[in-house]
Amino acid sequence: MKFTAKQIAKFLNGEIDGDPKVKVNDVAKIEEGKPGALSFLANPKYTAYIYETNSSIVLVNKDFKAEKPVMATLIRVENAYESFAKLLNIVNKAMLDKIGIDTSAHVCKSAKIGKDSYIGAFVYIGENAKLGKNVKIYPHSYIGDNVTIGDNVTIYAGVKIYHACNIGDECIIHAGAVIGSDGFGFAPDEQGNYNKIQQIGNVIIEKHVEIGANTCIDRATMGSTVIKEGVKLDNLVQIGHNVIIGKHTVAAAQTGISGSTQIGEHCMFGGQVGLAGHINIGNNVILGAQAGVPNDVKTGEKLLGSPAIPFMDFKRSFIIQKQLPEIREEVLKLRKEIEALKSQLINQA
Amino acid sequence: MKFTAKQIAKFLNGEIDGDPKVKVNDVAKIEEGKPGALSFLANPKYTAYIYETNSSIVLVNKDFKAEKPVMATLIRVENAYESFAKLLNIVNKAMLDKIGIDTSAHVCKSAKIGKDSYIGAFVYIGENAKLGKNVKIYPHSYIGDNVTIGDNVTIYAGVKIYHACNIGDECIIHAGAVIGSDGFGFAPDEQGNYNKIQQIGNVIIEKHVEIGANTCIDRATMGSTVIKEGVKLDNLVQIGHNVIIGKHTVAAAQTGISGSTQIGEHCMFGGQVGLAGHINIGNNVILGAQAGVPNDVKTGEKLLGSPAIPFMDFKRSFIIQKQLPEIREEVLKLRKEIEALKSQLINQA
Amino acid sequence: MKFTAKQIAKFLNGEIDGDPKVKVNDVAKIEEGKPGALSFLANPKYTAYIYETNSSIVLVNKDFKAEKPVMATLIRVENAYESFAKLLNIVNKAMLDKIGIDTSAHVCKSAKIGKDSYIGAFVYIGENAKLGKNVKIYPHSYIGDNVTIGDNVTIYAGVKIYHACNIGDECIIHAGAVIGSDGFGFAPDEQGNYNKIQQIGNVIIEKHVEIGANTCIDRATMGSTVIKEGVKLDNLVQIGHNVIIGKHTVAAAQTGISGSTQIGEHCMFGGQVGLAGHINIGNNVILGAQAGVPNDVKTGEKLLGSPAIPFMDFKRSFIIQKQLPEIREEVLKLRKEIEALKSQLINQA
Repeated sequence: MKFTAKQIAKFLNGEIDGDPKVKVNDVAKIEEGKPGALSFLANPKYTAYIYETNSSIVLVNKDFKAEKPVMATLIRVENAYESFAKLLNIVNKAMLDKIGIDTSAHVCKSAKIGKDSYIGAFVYIGENAKLGKNVKIYPHSYIGDNVTIGDNVTIYAGVKIYHACNIGDECIIHAGAVIGSDGFGFAPDEQGNYNKIQQIGNVIIEKHVEIGANTCIDRATMGSTVIKEGVKLDNLVQIGHNVIIGKHTVAAAQTGISGSTQIGEHCMFGGQVGLAGHINIGNNVILGAQAGVPNDVKTGEKLLGSPAIPFMDFKRSFIIQKQLPEIREEVLKLRKEIEALKSQLINQA
Repeated sequence: MKFTAKQIAKFLNGEIDGDPKVKVNDVAKIEEGKPGALSFLANPKYTAYIYETNSSIVLVNKDFKAEKPVMATLIRVENAYESFAKLLNIVNKAMLDKIGIDTSAHVCKSAKIGKDSYIGAFVYIGENAKLGKNVKIYPHSYIGDNVTIGDNVTIYAGVKIYHACNIGDECIIHAGAVIGSDGFGFAPDEQGNYNKIQQIGNVIIEKHVEIGANTCIDRATMGSTVIKEGVKLDNLVQIGHNVIIGKHTVAAAQTGISGSTQIGEHCMFGGQVGLAGHINIGNNVILGAQAGVPNDVKTGEKLLGSPAIPFMDFKRSFIIQKQLPEIREEVLKLRKEIEALKSQLINQA
Repeated sequence: MKFTAKQIAKFLNGEIDGDPKVKVNDVAKIEEGKPGALSFLANPKYTAYIYETNSSIVLVNKDFKAEKPVMATLIRVENAYESFAKLLNIVNKAMLDKIGIDTSAHVCKSAKIGKDSYIGAFVYIGENAKLGKNVKIYPHSYIGDNVTIGDNVTIYAGVKIYHACNIGDECIIHAGAVIGSDGFGFAPDEQGNYNKIQQIGNVIIEKHVEIGANTCIDRATMGSTVIKEGVKLDNLVQIGHNVIIGKHTVAAAQTGISGSTQIGEHCMFGGQVGLAGHINIGNNVILGAQAGVPNDVKTGEKLLGSPAIPFMDFKRSFIIQKQLPEIREEVLKLRKEIEALKSQLINQA
């Protein structure tokens, strides 16, 4: 697909500064520009590149003033970054747009599939599964019995959703993610051997949630593990049984949340964070990468370290750590000097 | 499936206190009870809910005495929790009971499948694979050449078992788990480039083992990586080549055990624990979440931290950490006072 | 397949010391030797086993001198370990050698497949995908649209490669790995909700790279996430969008590298290491297991801890940590003694 500067300017409600007929069929960072590509300039740090870029078209903010000649055709818009994102969104959706049920897919007769859906090769859709409109399911995904999926959901290749789980509208689930595996629950007997506790709950994922590749979300022992609206989980994240994650909380890769823990809204967790089970985390809590959280955390706290302590304490402690050899040295010196003073006083006496 | 209180009481050898004809077709926590559901009361903390619950039937311990009117039909049993678990076990097995070989499955001619098995859609069973009785393999699972699987094993969707690995009786393997991938073994050449060391061993998983979603267990370089009877591994766990894990040891999510390490029996590892390679861990060792273990650990030790130290030392060290700013302050003060004392003494002299 | 000592000696250019007709069809560690197996002796620590081993053939270094009678047939070679590895390589390749396109595979018409390839059952090959010669793709793998794959590549079961990614020659990708999932990129709006930033880049994996089971490599937001020649990634590793990893760097299991970070050549990362985003790591950097790296690291540094500090500092700090209770005790004593000295001086005055 090629687009002219004129077509793009019209779509973005922008103004052309250059050749309206120049065509692009790719995008590139401004510093890696090439003929036939569209770039954008939003961050002033990158301004120098606009005079050198080989890209054919560059989106710029309305108020951009060139201080040297620019070879590329410029399209002036209200907000160059947002316009670029808008454009990508359209193009990306068009590129990835697949439709129809592949003949190799296994769709149980009792399952319902909404219109405009894509059910890829080797997809399995279980008994009584209900899928909304415009659901895109890539090859090798497994949708268990009694699963419900909302509208406009994208499920990439090889996702496994166990029976009876619910996925809300507009969710995106990346390849290899597992939703609804058994919680890790065992009752030890007298010999210390473990008997499985049946995990009969499910997982409820609300709307606008994105779940990363190979992330695992366990079903509840009873009731539901709940991922609320707008939550974003990165790759290889572990969510234990009966966890509840509040709206618009984000967790970076390899974070683990143990069973029955409740997380507030708008929290931000760095990579490899670990949270103990059965604790409560307030709203707007920020946890630095690799933080380990054994206890409840109040709304608005920023913690770091394992066990996690407030950011400022962590920094202060880190600085003192470095001074420890000197402090020890000083204590040894003080000891010597005091001994000297003591013997001096004894001599005086 | 609906069951009457009478049927359930008979099955559990319990006594009915209420309407024997009331029916249930679901279960619920007592505090989230609803008509048509069965709940149980075991923990005295939840006793208050029995007077409010909307559940139709509640299992209680024999000696339960209601202090207010109860709407639900009670079934009195020896141990309410165990009876509930027993019930769930039966119902869950019935619900998940699938049988037969799907026509889309690829079963190599030389493979053997026992009776009462379920081989789901798109399952691949390799050459000379031998599966026992009552094996349930969900869609998209891959069973490599020469794999042996015991009786009563459940393998959820998308599990990958490489060639020549053995899975014991009564095992449960969750979706996306990988058994028998190559160990991470390379020999550096003079330029520091890495040449692959062929990994020709296998993985042996003994009976009653449960393996979590997306967990990886590498095959041995030579010989076997061995997961012994009764071991339970949570999701996203990594087990390196030639590791041996003793009976009834449990490891929580995202734990990693490096190559050639040997773990004793009845150990408990928290989430995100890491163990170095080529070390020995005794029996009944407890490692707190995020512990990092570089060396051997003796039977019965409880460690925490990275590098891991005994629980008590870790706690003590954590307390002193917090006092460090004061200690530094005090050392500075001591210095000043000593200088003052010294000059005072000089003046006196 | 059975081989005689004579056949093996000829292949390895070795000398037979014993029965040239003895046959083997398996390999075993020398200490676990059994009839019909081939073993090797390279490490002098294991010399004692050669007099007891039940293996039928043992490869030894040319200069090996038996001090007692040896039952096994010996084959003397220049380097016993290398010869053994060479042998395994051949046997392993023969054992795993599969060829042909399974009838159940879904290969889009526009895709190109090179000669001597194996496309297993239920494999999906997308539109315009281009595969080189001798590519082995195991069952359930997903190769997205416009993916290119070089020659002699092995892709194990259930690997998912998103559209437009490139895989170089001689790569090995283990089961469940995900290549090209979306980077974790969101722009918060005024309410703190997150809008997805389209991830339109790709992943480029150069030649001789090995990628572990269930490892995830995100595509670039724009441009490419690049894994350079000879890199080895273990299982469950996370590589964020736009990361660049230099040649011959190795990372152990469960390591995570955040978005836009650049890693040098010949680095070695232990297990569960975490690196922040947008940082630069030099060449030959060594990071100990569980290290957390928030900032740039210079070429040749060896770091440990979270936040990571030089190995020697970490060790020193760990030792002082242990002494902290004594140091605190000493400070308290110094305080008392100074107070005593002060009152003594006042009394003198």
